Amino acid sequence: MSEYIAPLRDMQFVMKELAGLDQVLQLPGNEEVDADVVDAILEEASKFASNVLSPINFSGDQEGAHWADKAVTVPAGFKEAYLQFAENGWTALPCDPEYGGQGLPKLVATAVNEMWKSSNMAFALCPMLTAGAIEALLTAGSDELKQKFLPKMVDGTWTGTMNLTEPNAGSDLAAVRSRAEPVGDGSYKVFGQKIFITYGDHNMTENVVHLVLARTPNAPEGVKGISLFVVPKFMVKDDGSLGERNDAYCVSIEHKLGIHGSPTAVMAFGDNGGAIGYLVGEENHGLEYMFVMMNAARFAVGLEGVAQCERAYQRAAVYAKERIQGTELGVKGGPKVAIIKHPDVRRMLMSMRSLTEATRTLAYVVAGALDNAKSNPDAEARAKAQAFADLMIPVVKGWSTETGIQVASTGVQVHGGMGFIEETGAAQHLRDARITAIYEGTTGIQANDLIGRKMAREGGVTIKAVIGEMRALDAQLAAQSGAEFAVLRSRLSSAVNALEEAVNWLLDNFKPNIKAAHAGAVPFLHLLGIVAGGWQLARGALVAQAKIDAGESDPFYKGKIVTARFFADHLMVQAPALTQSIVAGAEGSLTLEEDLF
Amino acid sequence: MSEYIAPLRDMQFVMKELAGLDQVLQLPGNEEVDADVVDAILEEASKFASNVLSPINFSGDQEGAHWADKAVTVPAGFKEAYLQFAENGWTALPCDPEYGGQGLPKLVATAVNEMWKSSNMAFALCPMLTAGAIEALLTAGSDELKQKFLPKMVDGTWTGTMNLTEPNAGSDLAAVRSRAEPVGDGSYKVFGQKIFITYGDHNMTENVVHLVLARTPNAPEGVKGISLFVVPKFMVKDDGSLGERNDAYCVSIEHKLGIHGSPTAVMAFGDNGGAIGYLVGEENHGLEYMFVMMNAARFAVGLEGVAQCERAYQRAAVYAKERIQGTELGVKGGPKVAIIKHPDVRRMLMSMRSLTEATRTLAYVVAGALDNAKSNPDAEARAKAQAFADLMIPVVKGWSTETGIQVASTGVQVHGGMGFIEETGAAQHLRDARITAIYEGTTGIQANDLIGRKMAREGGVTIKAVIGEMRALDAQLAAQSGAEFAVLRSRLSSAVNALEEAVNWLLDNFKPNIKAAHAGAVPFLHLLGIVAGGWQLARGALVAQAKIDAGESDPFYKGKIVTARFFADHLMVQAPALTQSIVAGAEGSLTLEEDLF
Repeated sequence: MSEYIAPLRDMQFVMKELAGLDQVLQLPGNEEVDADVVDAILEEASKFASNVLSPINFSGDQEGAHWADKAVTVPAGFKEAYLQFAENGWTALPCDPEYGGQGLPKLVATAVNEMWKSSNMAFALCPMLTAGAIEALLTAGSDELKQKFLPKMVDGTWTGTMNLTEPNAGSDLAAVRSRAEPVGDGSYKVFGQKIFITYGDHNMTENVVHLVLARTPNAPEGVKGISLFVVPKFMVKDDGSLGERNDAYCVSIEHKLGIHGSPTAVMAFGDNGGAIGYLVGEENHGLEYMFVMMNAARFAVGLEGVAQCERAYQRAAVYAKERIQGTELGVKGGPKVAIIKHPDVRRMLMSMRSLTEATRTLAYVVAGALDNAKSNPDAEARAKAQAFADLMIPVVKGWSTETGIQVASTGVQVHGGMGFIEETGAAQHLRDARITAIYEGTTGIQANDLIGRKMAREGGVTIKAVIGEMRALDAQLAAQSGAEFAVLRSRLSSAVNALEEAVNWLLDNFKPNIKAAHAGAVPFLHLLGIVAGGWQLARGALVAQAKIDAGESDPFYKGKIVTARFFADHLMVQAPALTQSIVAGAEGSLTLEEDLF
Repeated sequence: MSEYIAPLRDMQFVMKELAGLDQVLQLPGNEEVDADVVDAILEEASKFASNVLSPINFSGDQEGAHWADKAVTVPAGFKEAYLQFAENGWTALPCDPEYGGQGLPKLVATAVNEMWKSSNMAFALCPMLTAGAIEALLTAGSDELKQKFLPKMVDGTWTGTMNLTEPNAGSDLAAVRSRAEPVGDGSYKVFGQKIFITYGDHNMTENVVHLVLARTPNAPEGVKGISLFVVPKFMVKDDGSLGERNDAYCVSIEHKLGIHGSPTAVMAFGDNGGAIGYLVGEENHGLEYMFVMMNAARFAVGLEGVAQCERAYQRAAVYAKERIQGTELGVKGGPKVAIIKHPDVRRMLMSMRSLTEATRTLAYVVAGALDNAKSNPDAEARAKAQAFADLMIPVVKGWSTETGIQVASTGVQVHGGMGFIEETGAAQHLRDARITAIYEGTTGIQANDLIGRKMAREGGVTIKAVIGEMRALDAQLAAQSGAEFAVLRSRLSSAVNALEEAVNWLLDNFKPNIKAAHAGAVPFLHLLGIVAGGWQLARGALVAQAKIDAGESDPFYKGKIVTARFFADHLMVQAPALTQSIVAGAEGSLTLEEDLF
């Protein structure tokens, strides 16, 4: 089975030429990082991904996590890999230097994280969730809580979890029922059951730090009565050593379609008298704190989509170049050839490749914007970057993950019958990718966020500015010669027109026809994804052409142009139909009587 | 977990109103069947599917088939279900009365088979493969072979298999290397390894009859040197009793993404001196006989796509009506509601529903055509029906199965986090459906067959006639009042224009630009699928409106109209973009240098 190899060439191109790495490295706080350091980090990360994480990806999937006696054991090799991962400083990479982190820009961390998620998504979930828990504590934790927990979470000694979901509170967190009773000494006793808790228990570290949503006595109903608590698996003494076992146990793990290496826990808090917890920030503000970190979490899951695209594409491309079957079309009596010679296999590979590059570019560009939103000295630039990232994160999450599923499924298809055999490895990517469109908010939730909070609430200011930027590419495309750029220009122009029509319809109908608008939300998320993806690939094609014009002979650049063209002719071309489905499709979606389903 | 319930209302509507059941029942040979008998058969089949096959679907998936000592044991309950299935006469349903079959029309068998494939696809593969083997023997077997094997295969005492694929001969059967040496007494010794043999061994019946492709000594290279042999697991004596064990063994079974209940065998023929086999028909004509039955096999797999759509849709609809989460949009402070109230959930369900009905209708209409192709007393009518079926079978196979995967994936999404948990059952449908686009010819193979053998070879005569029939619906749609029919009319008209443009381009380019034409083959298959599916749903909407106009108050009819409209606005609307990808997309698919992948 082929191992993952990080696509460093494309990652570096996208970071440097499209996502503004040079500018990001000049932002305050990034003084100690230069382009050479970034290259060295990517190089080291790629080795770790290829040599340590990739080899235990399939075995981890097949073995799965084990549960017995309220404790979880991870698959063979995961613990050793994790200890090495932490020791090498990878957990600390994006974290605040105040607590021992390296404080690297989001853009750099994004490329590194893509590698973890491509080489072993089940493994990578553990540091991903820990990063979320760190973010929550940083956002609202007291200094005492931060000092107690953050340094050991940042250096990977302990891991973190996010405990939101309950059996009757999935997408609707207003329904959370877990409760927290003040003990009198400033701590609380937490009671309740949480489900779908990623790495809720495991044997890789001695402690696990749970972040738990619960209600205090007399808290208001709904989302305004939810508070956030830290509940460690083992109590932490003042000297930092571990004390008693807390009343927080993993009572079972789920039997899932994919990410088998990653335990998905049912957590019971307080079954034996109460789990000791500490309030994070103020009472009843828990969901607010969650929302602050939700962007990061959603971006991280969107990146899983990119990563699964890349992994599935790599495996399929390797196979298509090796597998001999049939003769070349139009060559009578010719020799047997590798299946990459067959036009439909090439079409599938180009579809996988162009979607991988499009989702990657959009994600990295958003990562660069997040760096600017955080650190740009100019307030207006910060605000603009934040608005762009806020708008695009549901697209990075929703579109990249839906695309990851599609690309992984195409990857199975490229393998023919072998794709259906688990040992080939292609099927795992489909099984793993399938969760990404569900957790951290389903695609439907992302799409509602996109059209409501990110567009209608501000009257479409940011999306209209983005459309303006897309249009601004037209003159540059027009200035190029060659069929590819004529195609890119005309497809982008039609697609942007379609996007604008859909935006206007959604803004006009969001209040008066709220159900109709929401029936178009997911088609709109797809529409914005393919137009924004095509726009970014067109930007890349322009850069590539400039390199070629300047005498660069690396065929990589020609590849960027061909890939952008494929995307325009096969993906961006779908934009007008999506707009039709949005502006005219609600009747068909909403009319049927419920009991006829 | 909800059990399968056969959609009898829609099946009967499609059979009677759209696929011409009345006319089919009047064809020669169908004298003993009337509409009441058909209803009774469907009713009985639906009970068997719901009460016997559906309850062992998930358990069979979780347990899987077992292999030990060169023999396979099926999951718990499968053997008992199979014996009851055979005893009730279901194996004999579509078979030739001369060998004990009931000779029911293909159209009726199609509805019944859909139920088996929906309720338990892994189980249904066994009778499906047996039917293929029966067909092969009927096509070319000597009377002696027919008498020896057919009656017990028809009554289900023995099952059959198809042994085509070898490790280096997947889609490319020209590469078959298994060999057969004449012994001198008219029999052969067969040697070779076959892979991906569905139900290649099992413990449900005492014998298994293998149909095996192999080469005789001095046979020509390529497809013209392949012969077909019958190789029974146990030799059959002249009195019909079983003799010695033949040298045909299952040496392992595959570890697959889905259809776990169905053993997928690696078969070793002749490892211990040679497996006794009997030539079917003439030497070197094996592939020809396979092609005769390939239509039936491909149709049967296409029907698996329909069946998985239906099963996934049912499960998702049941869940969406039960699962309470969130409040209704636009109802501030309202009660928690079932998720079917949320517009995006409805959109997903409508998408699943409309694709299910579209794929079903197309398949049943083709089944009706196959009945006419076989038995219509008028030669011209037979030829026309055969040409229509030949054209559409790659679409039924390719489009329905790709659609089945998509619908099953949407079904997972409707369940949210629960969809990713295996016990919910939704994930199994996705895993099971995934194989359908691969076996019996991948979607790429179907699409090549469609544009080459079924269109270019005859200069597009049949597809142009079908386009004419689609256009003929325009006047009827125009005569209706109401927004739904205006939408259907305009969408169908645009879609048919797009289809015609693509057809003309493919016919013009098939020879001069053979690779470009083939790069557009799969997009064309999808295009023809959605246009033909939308056409059939529009026909259904017209019938439904006529019923309503005639005073029928069953809300089912209104549902048919709404569903057709949804399909027009969300699926058929994609036709022009697909045509663009076909006529302009080949450059992007074929230009990139191989080593850049």
